[in-house]
Amino acid sequence: MDKLRVSLLGSTGMVGQKMVKLLSKHPYIELTKISASPSKIGKKYSEAVKWVEGGEIPDNVRELKLVSTLPEDHKDVDVVLSALPNELAEDIELKLVREGKIVVSNASPYRMDPEVPLINPEINWEHLELLKSQKSKRNWKGLLIKNPNCTASILSLPLKPLLRDVKMNKILITTLQAVSGAGYNGLSFMSIENNIIPYIKGEEEKIPKEINKMLGIINTDKLIEANLDANVTSIRVPTKVGHMGIINIMTDENKVDEIKKSLKYFKSLPQEKNLPTAPKSPIVVMDQEDRPQPEIDLKSGNGMETYVGRIKYSDGILRMIVLGDNLIRGAAGITILTVEVMKELGYI
Amino acid sequence: MDKLRVSLLGSTGMVGQKMVKLLSKHPYIELTKISASPSKIGKKYSEAVKWVEGGEIPDNVRELKLVSTLPEDHKDVDVVLSALPNELAEDIELKLVREGKIVVSNASPYRMDPEVPLINPEINWEHLELLKSQKSKRNWKGLLIKNPNCTASILSLPLKPLLRDVKMNKILITTLQAVSGAGYNGLSFMSIENNIIPYIKGEEEKIPKEINKMLGIINTDKLIEANLDANVTSIRVPTKVGHMGIINIMTDENKVDEIKKSLKYFKSLPQEKNLPTAPKSPIVVMDQEDRPQPEIDLKSGNGMETYVGRIKYSDGILRMIVLGDNLIRGAAGITILTVEVMKELGYI
Amino acid sequence: MDKLRVSLLGSTGMVGQKMVKLLSKHPYIELTKISASPSKIGKKYSEAVKWVEGGEIPDNVRELKLVSTLPEDHKDVDVVLSALPNELAEDIELKLVREGKIVVSNASPYRMDPEVPLINPEINWEHLELLKSQKSKRNWKGLLIKNPNCTASILSLPLKPLLRDVKMNKILITTLQAVSGAGYNGLSFMSIENNIIPYIKGEEEKIPKEINKMLGIINTDKLIEANLDANVTSIRVPTKVGHMGIINIMTDENKVDEIKKSLKYFKSLPQEKNLPTAPKSPIVVMDQEDRPQPEIDLKSGNGMETYVGRIKYSDGILRMIVLGDNLIRGAAGITILTVEVMKELGYI
Amino acid sequence: MDKLRVSLLGSTGMVGQKMVKLLSKHPYIELTKISASPSKIGKKYSEAVKWVEGGEIPDNVRELKLVSTLPEDHKDVDVVLSALPNELAEDIELKLVREGKIVVSNASPYRMDPEVPLINPEINWEHLELLKSQKSKRNWKGLLIKNPNCTASILSLPLKPLLRDVKMNKILITTLQAVSGAGYNGLSFMSIENNIIPYIKGEEEKIPKEINKMLGIINTDKLIEANLDANVTSIRVPTKVGHMGIINIMTDENKVDEIKKSLKYFKSLPQEKNLPTAPKSPIVVMDQEDRPQPEIDLKSGNGMETYVGRIKYSDGILRMIVLGDNLIRGAAGITILTVEVMKELGYI
Repeated sequence: MDKLRVSLLGSTGMVGQKMVKLLSKHPYIELTKISASPSKIGKKYSEAVKWVEGGEIPDNVRELKLVSTLPEDHKDVDVVLSALPNELAEDIELKLVREGKIVVSNASPYRMDPEVPLINPEINWEHLELLKSQKSKRNWKGLLIKNPNCTASILSLPLKPLLRDVKMNKILITTLQAVSGAGYNGLSFMSIENNIIPYIKGEEEKIPKEINKMLGIINTDKLIEANLDANVTSIRVPTKVGHMGIINIMTDENKVDEIKKSLKYFKSLPQEKNLPTAPKSPIVVMDQEDRPQPEIDLKSGNGMETYVGRIKYSDGILRMIVLGDNLIRGAAGITILTVEVMKELGYI
Repeated sequence: MDKLRVSLLGSTGMVGQKMVKLLSKHPYIELTKISASPSKIGKKYSEAVKWVEGGEIPDNVRELKLVSTLPEDHKDVDVVLSALPNELAEDIELKLVREGKIVVSNASPYRMDPEVPLINPEINWEHLELLKSQKSKRNWKGLLIKNPNCTASILSLPLKPLLRDVKMNKILITTLQAVSGAGYNGLSFMSIENNIIPYIKGEEEKIPKEINKMLGIINTDKLIEANLDANVTSIRVPTKVGHMGIINIMTDENKVDEIKKSLKYFKSLPQEKNLPTAPKSPIVVMDQEDRPQPEIDLKSGNGMETYVGRIKYSDGILRMIVLGDNLIRGAAGITILTVEVMKELGYI
Repeated sequence: MDKLRVSLLGSTGMVGQKMVKLLSKHPYIELTKISASPSKIGKKYSEAVKWVEGGEIPDNVRELKLVSTLPEDHKDVDVVLSALPNELAEDIELKLVREGKIVVSNASPYRMDPEVPLINPEINWEHLELLKSQKSKRNWKGLLIKNPNCTASILSLPLKPLLRDVKMNKILITTLQAVSGAGYNGLSFMSIENNIIPYIKGEEEKIPKEINKMLGIINTDKLIEANLDANVTSIRVPTKVGHMGIINIMTDENKVDEIKKSLKYFKSLPQEKNLPTAPKSPIVVMDQEDRPQPEIDLKSGNGMETYVGRIKYSDGILRMIVLGDNLIRGAAGITILTVEVMKELGYI
Repeated sequence: MDKLRVSLLGSTGMVGQKMVKLLSKHPYIELTKISASPSKIGKKYSEAVKWVEGGEIPDNVRELKLVSTLPEDHKDVDVVLSALPNELAEDIELKLVREGKIVVSNASPYRMDPEVPLINPEINWEHLELLKSQKSKRNWKGLLIKNPNCTASILSLPLKPLLRDVKMNKILITTLQAVSGAGYNGLSFMSIENNIIPYIKGEEEKIPKEINKMLGIINTDKLIEANLDANVTSIRVPTKVGHMGIINIMTDENKVDEIKKSLKYFKSLPQEKNLPTAPKSPIVVMDQEDRPQPEIDLKSGNGMETYVGRIKYSDGILRMIVLGDNLIRGAAGITILTVEVMKELGYI
């Protein structure tokens, strides 16, 4: 397969570092340009980054010099990946798209735009079709593809097969979110160590909206969103990595065994095409009574799995506990898998 | 007021130490006998205890010698307090009650016995009336009074006024429980640090049952339990002290302002009689968007408050977040307040 | 005793909050003015502060409006206390001193100035005499008094009596410093949780210098510094409060028993005059083999004690482990005690 | 190369699990028998173990049934590896050795026996020669080889080249040891979270003794120990993995550059023979001012490296900070590397 040349915006941040690491071993995606904030332009990556990813900086990037985020610095790449902070992303990404780049981005602006696909590959790779109407309706020369919020990425995976299996009247979700979700410097040790903060700005609104967009269907080039009645309470807990969701689904149907099978055997295009970043099983069903646990389970796959445990039905409530890696399935990995799908389907 | 002489079972454990500390400053309850496991009998408290409570061992107890749990060693006390581990409590406490002692206990056996009052003072001090039928139906010479599970103690407080204000169709609760709830040596650092364990043995069954017993009413000497349809998922989180509950109440009534007032001004006998261990306001309503937090809020009262924040109504769901001190309101303090109420009402 | 009116610079920071709390119960020091960064001027304290001290904001300060750090806003106070960040302190404090204010400050600039006393009250209250030469040599209308670095405050306490008892050839110190020493937002959770950072900027140089200044003697109005040959390695550890020092003193004298007594019975002016913030015993000697421990011991006094344990002599090395509260003895409390000493001695 | 068949004592403990994992990918050591405490005999490994190592139980072991520690259950293996707890090891291991087994063990008994080699392969593989005198003087039919204490394993690595380069008058070491060093259940969360315990039973005595034994030389079949005058203070810190040592060496020689080179290029038999578990560089010298750090550096190699940073000489003191993985270099990995060396040299 031909190599795909990509550049990366926000390469020195925590998610950027994760992408650098994942791409260093990628069979055909080659990271050839990296950019960061203006003060770092021209420096070598190894000098500009405070490397926190663990292990060494990959050799292919260590000596690369940082470039700007301007289109002229991203000319000879096929795709631009973005791990920019939300507040900087809009202008920078739009300029690149307008100048003809394909941008696949983790940042929040434009996620809810009806002509911008919000891709969690196993769930809604078909939504890439929206790029047609994007092309026709916007006078952008390039393409803009978004990935969802980290928690929405993880929670939406088991909801996809459930949508088919169960009539869900109402869904109540409590999310327990790790500190890395707020960025490397997002929370001080003094504020969260030995503490719980029962609030995360914007999260409770974003999650249901993004889930409904991802679970929607395309009807003659337009996306019709799903209408799950989901209610979310988001809590910050003192762990480093791994977002957990306690999901309570109000339903009259007691189909625990069927659901377990359905989750366990859920597969989609990335699995069928055996894409490099696709997990073998996107959903891992656990039967042990005290699982999933971030410290044990997140090390067992490639970071792209969602672990589901404590599935139980009683008194009209289907309960399950969901866990995923917020930096991989929730951010760096999902972007790369999206690029793989786009390549597979000929969008790139 | 006459001094009340009490003894304490399980005095060297974590909850026992908390009682020792709280009682060392009590205006009229005097801790005169302490007991612990057989191997420690005869030793001075200061030699037998691994003191972890913080600060110094109180002077009144430091030199006291440990006695057994047998009735003959508790003759000259008015009340026996029990902070025994659940698995040892049944036999030891029963022997004392049969020999004529009044035992007020934190341990789980007999909590659901219909003739044993399960007391969370502000909520159901009236249930002490059950002691009449206990006296007539059991051939015990003494009395057995129980305190609820630590999480049930905290969660039941705001539910009491809500029971009157709101028609609750269904209640979904996620509890985030601190490690001290499992005892001082209950969880190893390796197992829970930087981790979440989404399971606590027995908890999900106990909490709704005990809440319904506490919220019940006495009808001609018999307790008629409440029938709240509460569904609980219990999660262990890496914090030391403070149990939190995310409560979602399915209700058609949007009465947030009324409920806030109702919670804020909730008072009961312990407040009216100005009992020493009673918090001024049993329920503290917080309006800041990121509260309550264990590290900040649990230090502001005397450990007997329940903090309630993030009260919101939307789409048929009344949501609130509840926090309390599992070692004080959940264990040591509630026992002492129960004794104060019993004294006030003439049961002792 | 007449009330002493003080103002506080940096009142909304972590150390500032600690001072606010300590002063709220002070018998004669009254906090009447509080200042903070320009953007907060005019706001009520309760609105401007992110209160993290635990418990409620004291009533006497809650409604106070923040003023600037300019001299005109501090006219009617007897003393200005400073909890300013090091990088802002120099200009602001100097302007106040030049305009006639007595400033007692925690910030680092001017600590090593030979005419500025660096006060750790029990050790060197006599150094206040330097204020005479400060007055005569500087054309400041007011006075500038400094408190030492938090680690130096704690470590210097046991060194004072040791200086008299033991010939110390060389001292090797490893400090284990809590995260609060870097300020409330000084270290992110991601960087230090489950980690050790074996470096703290500037600390290894400051500590020996400040200790030698504090342990110096006044000779005809001039300070002659001590010349302890101390070598420090400073390590950041994932705890919130409490700085620990492992001290190894090279000495030929094996006098463990004598030293223990000497440390235990060490008293100074603050104890003799029974000053409100003075600890009963500045040095607490512990004989248990696994102490001192921050989580247990720092709660036992008023935060002004230094705990010393594991004292041992072998093969030419006198070893001891020292622990103190970096926010109280290391910052907020030491400033207040300095003011008390100055008042007692007529400097204010 | 012929496969080497080994069995493992203590296979369900934390170090045992680490060995199981490391061996699952070993090119020629095949784990064919696993044993555990009597109550688990006959069970499948996957049923008997509480797997905490992260990831899945390796396939080659998952279905293996646990056997006893008795010699008859270890007949058809070439070597018995032992990850037994210290208090059980002596009897069990001796019985196996007497019956003819080669036992390579992590447990402490017999470590200081003059006829038992205490092997940290890069440092003293030559000590295997002691097996000759062991064979002739003991009427054991097998062989007993020990690995050192976890901290001694890590600290001794840089001391080996230093021994040649520098005249060391005295060495002062402070060790900061992770909780896993006490075993998976060795310390409760309540006791060590947000705390420091300045004492580890037995450690301060063991470390200098074992280091001197390892650094000794063989003279006509007898070991002559080194006589470094090392003084150790051992501290438990709230991290999971990674033991750190702050080493202060009293020396008159300022040779920092020479030492850095010497450490960096240190190689030994395992490197020369390119053994599978040998790290490429046993000692990694770091020049960044805030390194080594457990959370960043321990992920960069194969767990067998010792990281050395903050090397500095001043006033007669050579200071360095040393970090290693206590579960791999300190336990599981060192045992496997010892077996590899023995195989290479024909002892097996």
